[in-house]
Amino acid sequence: MVAKNLMLFAGRSHPELAEEVAKYLDVPLTPQSVYDFANGEIFVRFEESVRGCDAFVIQSHCAPINKWLVEQLIMVDALKRASAKRITVIMPFYAYSRQDKKHRGREPISARLIADLFKTAGAHRIMTVDLHTAQIQGFFDGPVDHLFAQNLLASYVNDKYGGADITVVSPDSGRTKLAEKWADHLGGRPIAFIHKSRDPLRPNEVVANRVVGDVEGRTCVVVDDMVDTGGTIAKAVRRLLEHGALDVVIAATHGVLSAQAPTALAESGAREFIVTNTLPIPEEKRFPQLTVLSIAPLLARAIHEVFEVGSVTSLFDGHA
Amino acid sequence: MVAKNLMLFAGRSHPELAEEVAKYLDVPLTPQSVYDFANGEIFVRFEESVRGCDAFVIQSHCAPINKWLVEQLIMVDALKRASAKRITVIMPFYAYSRQDKKHRGREPISARLIADLFKTAGAHRIMTVDLHTAQIQGFFDGPVDHLFAQNLLASYVNDKYGGADITVVSPDSGRTKLAEKWADHLGGRPIAFIHKSRDPLRPNEVVANRVVGDVEGRTCVVVDDMVDTGGTIAKAVRRLLEHGALDVVIAATHGVLSAQAPTALAESGAREFIVTNTLPIPEEKRFPQLTVLSIAPLLARAIHEVFEVGSVTSLFDGHA
Amino acid sequence: MVAKNLMLFAGRSHPELAEEVAKYLDVPLTPQSVYDFANGEIFVRFEESVRGCDAFVIQSHCAPINKWLVEQLIMVDALKRASAKRITVIMPFYAYSRQDKKHRGREPISARLIADLFKTAGAHRIMTVDLHTAQIQGFFDGPVDHLFAQNLLASYVNDKYGGADITVVSPDSGRTKLAEKWADHLGGRPIAFIHKSRDPLRPNEVVANRVVGDVEGRTCVVVDDMVDTGGTIAKAVRRLLEHGALDVVIAATHGVLSAQAPTALAESGAREFIVTNTLPIPEEKRFPQLTVLSIAPLLARAIHEVFEVGSVTSLFDGHA
Amino acid sequence: MVAKNLMLFAGRSHPELAEEVAKYLDVPLTPQSVYDFANGEIFVRFEESVRGCDAFVIQSHCAPINKWLVEQLIMVDALKRASAKRITVIMPFYAYSRQDKKHRGREPISARLIADLFKTAGAHRIMTVDLHTAQIQGFFDGPVDHLFAQNLLASYVNDKYGGADITVVSPDSGRTKLAEKWADHLGGRPIAFIHKSRDPLRPNEVVANRVVGDVEGRTCVVVDDMVDTGGTIAKAVRRLLEHGALDVVIAATHGVLSAQAPTALAESGAREFIVTNTLPIPEEKRFPQLTVLSIAPLLARAIHEVFEVGSVTSLFDGHA
Amino acid sequence: MVAKNLMLFAGRSHPELAEEVAKYLDVPLTPQSVYDFANGEIFVRFEESVRGCDAFVIQSHCAPINKWLVEQLIMVDALKRASAKRITVIMPFYAYSRQDKKHRGREPISARLIADLFKTAGAHRIMTVDLHTAQIQGFFDGPVDHLFAQNLLASYVNDKYGGADITVVSPDSGRTKLAEKWADHLGGRPIAFIHKSRDPLRPNEVVANRVVGDVEGRTCVVVDDMVDTGGTIAKAVRRLLEHGALDVVIAATHGVLSAQAPTALAESGAREFIVTNTLPIPEEKRFPQLTVLSIAPLLARAIHEVFEVGSVTSLFDGHA
Amino acid sequence: MVAKNLMLFAGRSHPELAEEVAKYLDVPLTPQSVYDFANGEIFVRFEESVRGCDAFVIQSHCAPINKWLVEQLIMVDALKRASAKRITVIMPFYAYSRQDKKHRGREPISARLIADLFKTAGAHRIMTVDLHTAQIQGFFDGPVDHLFAQNLLASYVNDKYGGADITVVSPDSGRTKLAEKWADHLGGRPIAFIHKSRDPLRPNEVVANRVVGDVEGRTCVVVDDMVDTGGTIAKAVRRLLEHGALDVVIAATHGVLSAQAPTALAESGAREFIVTNTLPIPEEKRFPQLTVLSIAPLLARAIHEVFEVGSVTSLFDGHA
Repeated sequence: MVAKNLMLFAGRSHPELAEEVAKYLDVPLTPQSVYDFANGEIFVRFEESVRGCDAFVIQSHCAPINKWLVEQLIMVDALKRASAKRITVIMPFYAYSRQDKKHRGREPISARLIADLFKTAGAHRIMTVDLHTAQIQGFFDGPVDHLFAQNLLASYVNDKYGGADITVVSPDSGRTKLAEKWADHLGGRPIAFIHKSRDPLRPNEVVANRVVGDVEGRTCVVVDDMVDTGGTIAKAVRRLLEHGALDVVIAATHGVLSAQAPTALAESGAREFIVTNTLPIPEEKRFPQLTVLSIAPLLARAIHEVFEVGSVTSLFDGHA
Repeated sequence: MVAKNLMLFAGRSHPELAEEVAKYLDVPLTPQSVYDFANGEIFVRFEESVRGCDAFVIQSHCAPINKWLVEQLIMVDALKRASAKRITVIMPFYAYSRQDKKHRGREPISARLIADLFKTAGAHRIMTVDLHTAQIQGFFDGPVDHLFAQNLLASYVNDKYGGADITVVSPDSGRTKLAEKWADHLGGRPIAFIHKSRDPLRPNEVVANRVVGDVEGRTCVVVDDMVDTGGTIAKAVRRLLEHGALDVVIAATHGVLSAQAPTALAESGAREFIVTNTLPIPEEKRFPQLTVLSIAPLLARAIHEVFEVGSVTSLFDGHA
Repeated sequence: MVAKNLMLFAGRSHPELAEEVAKYLDVPLTPQSVYDFANGEIFVRFEESVRGCDAFVIQSHCAPINKWLVEQLIMVDALKRASAKRITVIMPFYAYSRQDKKHRGREPISARLIADLFKTAGAHRIMTVDLHTAQIQGFFDGPVDHLFAQNLLASYVNDKYGGADITVVSPDSGRTKLAEKWADHLGGRPIAFIHKSRDPLRPNEVVANRVVGDVEGRTCVVVDDMVDTGGTIAKAVRRLLEHGALDVVIAATHGVLSAQAPTALAESGAREFIVTNTLPIPEEKRFPQLTVLSIAPLLARAIHEVFEVGSVTSLFDGHA
Repeated sequence: MVAKNLMLFAGRSHPELAEEVAKYLDVPLTPQSVYDFANGEIFVRFEESVRGCDAFVIQSHCAPINKWLVEQLIMVDALKRASAKRITVIMPFYAYSRQDKKHRGREPISARLIADLFKTAGAHRIMTVDLHTAQIQGFFDGPVDHLFAQNLLASYVNDKYGGADITVVSPDSGRTKLAEKWADHLGGRPIAFIHKSRDPLRPNEVVANRVVGDVEGRTCVVVDDMVDTGGTIAKAVRRLLEHGALDVVIAATHGVLSAQAPTALAESGAREFIVTNTLPIPEEKRFPQLTVLSIAPLLARAIHEVFEVGSVTSLFDGHA
Repeated sequence: MVAKNLMLFAGRSHPELAEEVAKYLDVPLTPQSVYDFANGEIFVRFEESVRGCDAFVIQSHCAPINKWLVEQLIMVDALKRASAKRITVIMPFYAYSRQDKKHRGREPISARLIADLFKTAGAHRIMTVDLHTAQIQGFFDGPVDHLFAQNLLASYVNDKYGGADITVVSPDSGRTKLAEKWADHLGGRPIAFIHKSRDPLRPNEVVANRVVGDVEGRTCVVVDDMVDTGGTIAKAVRRLLEHGALDVVIAATHGVLSAQAPTALAESGAREFIVTNTLPIPEEKRFPQLTVLSIAPLLARAIHEVFEVGSVTSLFDGHA
Repeated sequence: MVAKNLMLFAGRSHPELAEEVAKYLDVPLTPQSVYDFANGEIFVRFEESVRGCDAFVIQSHCAPINKWLVEQLIMVDALKRASAKRITVIMPFYAYSRQDKKHRGREPISARLIADLFKTAGAHRIMTVDLHTAQIQGFFDGPVDHLFAQNLLASYVNDKYGGADITVVSPDSGRTKLAEKWADHLGGRPIAFIHKSRDPLRPNEVVANRVVGDVEGRTCVVVDDMVDTGGTIAKAVRRLLEHGALDVVIAATHGVLSAQAPTALAESGAREFIVTNTLPIPEEKRFPQLTVLSIAPLLARAIHEVFEVGSVTSLFDGHA
């Protein structure tokens, strides 16, 4: 048996990240032909034998999100039929993770559907970063490597703002537990959150945003797993400043940054907005207060640990 | 085709609840022989034909919890092999629901395992009440009826304490969202929570329990999905009273009440402790401040709605 | 059991076709909330109970084809979890049907993948029209209703051009069998095809397009299952005219009409180009020689026959 | 690839056996945290990486049998999610093996259910000893290692009683084939069995126990796969002595020994009762005539043969 | 919904039985085209719509047994793809039932394989008669109707020979339990069996056939589930007569009667040989002592009971 | 781990081919006991350990085709239960490949069924030669090695007839694409085909066989994937000769040669008929014009490439 080898595959959504991971692993991205037919159907063909390889398929689920999902499914199908030995699907941002339960009747649970679709296509394992809810691990029938980029963000914040009087703030009641973890990580800081009050007769309408906890005169670190349109976060920043916060810093793993998010965040009054590159952040979405940390080292290390063959042992100074 | 009929089946864990549900539905519990062999193996046999029936199998997952789980699995297997048309597993309290994700590596996700085991045995549908996390719905590959007993509890609290200055309190940072829902339900009340602060160097040790939010001079309603040993809740009650709470009322769906829970709660200083009967609460676990609301009407109504045949139309005054 | 009812659901790709089918069946499209989140994730919720219904979910797989695929998968998931009794996926044009085999190693078989994805989401049955190859029926593990629109096209051609000296022409060697069927249908006409000759040393390069069969002085009916970019067809038309064809008429079921297809076809010299509306053909793709026949009656009749409950018996004058 | 390694895991039901097997293999039991939550839910976490290992999970299915079943299922789930390469479930006594068919309608086939539950949890292979019926091998969809401890027992009996005039006796009509195998093994001995005669009008009532075959003046060896309450066996012993048997020796693989079994057997008049330690036999169940043989060497040898990697080659003096 | 209807389908192996069942049910056999291609491939097409029907597919597994197996699998596939609502496979004699366990390593468990193949093809349920071992029920993942023809045989024997001094005889040690059931059924008769003694050094060689139990001067009823080559049975008859049996009668459900079986049985000295027609017994296999009882009424009654729709209520005088 | 080893297994249908493949690979056929029981049931047992091996199971699907199919399925089951690591099913001629779609309603898709049956039995991979339609690759849920023997045939024809004025002829309209490939392979030759014209009122009746394309004075090479009864081919040969063909040569991969095929072909007027030995061609089917090329080298090379372990590296001069 020739030594089973690690092979990296990348969809077309976020080539920079894939290349950075490849560089860290010192493994080339496998050459492939991938293109769209005139009607939008995607064609994939790998240019090298993948027989018996340990395949890692990276795709960031950014817009057009359904296209990149299907592309990754097709890549997995091609790998399965070409006898890859094991197929690990890497989705730094797990698509549809917010649809992880039925809020009301007759809704899908799309996050479970995604897991099942990849299983059907042939995936043996999923690797992902900071799931919207950790329970999504249980949606996949097999091993899930759930990596934590929050540590990366928290260390950055600690280095830069650790000397200030920090209050960790959850932008809504659902992320208070996350805020508590940050508070511990930053050395026992107080926490606060924004309480959205609704009138029971008009449940879809928020009648008040109350800040619960002490923020006056403090540096507020608002934490979340993702920032999509930025509306909730921008409102939270303004509310905190109204309540006397000295400064507001925002930290989130996934910079979805849809629609007017860059403008809303840039004008929110926040001092810094820190995200990772789980999703591509093109030039036109960037703004002065934005800091982007790379998760490529984290992904590379995880791939290395998952891989069973020792042919990349020179990596990471033997720490892996 | 003779009309498909609704048949009710009950494991041995909580006969009172099953009988109450049967009474509301005006459908008898199906006679069965169920007993333990000398070595603990369970034997089940139904005394009437179940061919083509729409089967509902009720079991409360209380201690000895693994025995009742296996009993319910065996009942489902017997129904499948005897040609029941559809099998709905009713688990008012979903066993192992707290093990819904891997907290660290090399742990099971037992809540997913439970869903898969019932699927394998032959279950087509699951009916359950107030899941520990709503994402567990996505663990089952099929329809899940997720009933909300929190409304039942909240209405009771509103009727009895609605006139007071209520603050809704989450006993830890993970239930703040639930507290927010209650606050809305009770008419826009403020919320608070207990912040457990840990030293990052000793992460398993809580160094401080801070009350975040206003509780002084107010009636605190502490809300949770389940109360097991009661330790966290009892500590929360004491902390709230120390912070000047006028009164503390506790409301939780599932009264697991293990070990010293009854004593701890009775002596905690709380004015009332309200649960439902998703789990049996035998006489020896009862104490003066305890109020038990029945979920049987809720289960009966849900079964009635799920059932497709109209032969129980006299039920519920036609409201179903 | 209340009578099981037929319910129609439509994705957003081709509302005109869905509405036309609904009108023929005299069954309304089920109201639903479907919209895109800011990052492109699709949300679906049905506004009426679907419990126990016989669901038919129509989606045309046109561009953006992957989005409409995922939308239909999500709709099926929502129906499954909401207890639809049976789910039939209607895809008038089967996406990725050209990727029905591996041409070379390390390619996917995306047409099989599509079948498996819908099975996984919860589809019990597929209804489709004029598959690229009939073997795709065997990709789905369950019943497939394979409807033939070629009869519709052939009857139209026969009515309009039946009096002429027709030769049925396959635009390449792979559709000769289809041409033979047409020739029989039109009453024993001769057939011809375009032979694309390649140099074995340069296999991707066509060195000659030879017309095999008699076309001089005849009305050529070029037949195919789909027209995508129109390049092959336009070339075939020109080649036939060069070889003395009197007139050229084109008939194809699926008008994909990507890119420059409308222009290419309009300027090809063909007298008429006949397609169906399995795919939407918006105003900007239309051109003078284009005729669009509706497959809605065919779909409606098939749905009616598949549906088991007799509550739509007034349909179709009892012919179904 | 670092060499795949054999790892042993043990549930809490029978630590002595697991440790004995570990000693024979010279492989340590993998350290783990296993405990019960207050409500009886079991928690498991392995203390060492199991990634890529060849896992063997030992659990004896003794009382409380359902608890140990679920514990073993949870261990398998944890191994699957932690990327064990292959998982072999070792159940020296296969739980519910007597429920291997439907005796009448509306019964489960629990022995098949058990096989399916382990498959669902993630087991690739089952290893077990002396199944109640060999057909149970076919209940599992994968390899089953069915070890024979009967040889161990028969050799012991031959050594000790081989010089006597032996008749091998089946305690009922269902084990006559087993008796025949023993008779051959012991060198062509005669066999006998107890015929339980029932009145066809009262089928559940035995009206006579007839000894069929010669036992007078002979040493009777009563053989069975398991002894549960001991009632049938004790009656058989008495009946044989009444018929003039010189001596009675009992041999059975699985000493379930429920309820009053130890007393019943001790007072039955049998000279010796020989079992193995597939199930734990605590001090309070032991009695003077009891002999317990260890199956640990048999299990260890089988594990060694199943394991594919040669890193334990020093074992067994090269005989494996 | 038009009433779901019972449809009967028959393979080509045993048309007489299928027609007899059809007559009892007053339901016609569904017309079909079934024939062999020149290379032996089987083609099946049903001549009437089977959409939504409750299908029962009868095939006797006689020689050429593999051909009839594949034919039945293909029929099930065709029914599945044509939308039969439920498919029950009727195999009066279950092929490969003797291969129900691994006797030694590296053998198949073909009886389990058969169950899985039918499941895969689309069977929902199996109906069969007197399985070689009852555990085979557990090989199928779904309902199995296990019918007992032994009662039919025993009643016949009782009517004809009930006045004699009967001993029920098992032809080997593996059928003693069956003999015991017969003994009860015939009113508490004694039983005996033939003990095949082997030399442990030459295990494949029988050194003695001992009759265990009283047979002298008695009418011996030898019982078995099937008679294949008849060798064992013919030897048993001779052995019994040598031991002074007055008369020997043989009863077995399945008359496989391969090779020289008719001659061997006719010349064995037995007075009567009674079988059923689960398998066809063509004229050339018949001999004077042979009596064939029909199982068609038993099959028809079972089909009637399984069928859920009441449109055949005139059947069976309402006893079903 | 001892090195995983390649093991070859052969059913009984075509021992010459299996032995030839074994010789090329320098790997022995694994000894086995395979025989028929008296009633036609097949028994298989391998005589050597197969634990952990990479198994290749060769069977040619010739008459009695259903027997050889079941034999191969049973061999796969035995390998699975004996812990073969990977099982590749080699079917040089894929049985039932012509039943690859539903031509009309209520037909099976037997080619898909075959794929599913082997998957169920335990096959991980299929290796086959020149499928009737390439889409059959998509019927199997896993890797399919689709080998091309057409190249072998075309090279032979080119060597022998390359100097002549060749026209490649498809015997019907469905193989025109194949003819085109041959035309390219032979260096840009013209092509022709036989157009079978039907009267639409009598669709099963061919009213005319028209030759489309130039054949006069040319050497016609008639190509097909298989020749069964030879009727279509023999008619094509005569038709071509009537149209002035100088010479006719026939090339087909699979020589099914059922019924009167040898006579029909021998007397057709064709100069040479070239097939491979994917199916056995016994002496009595051979005739003077027949040439049989061996596919053993092709199969051996493919097996070698699939096999992952390097212990057969001396093979093929290192070209593999």
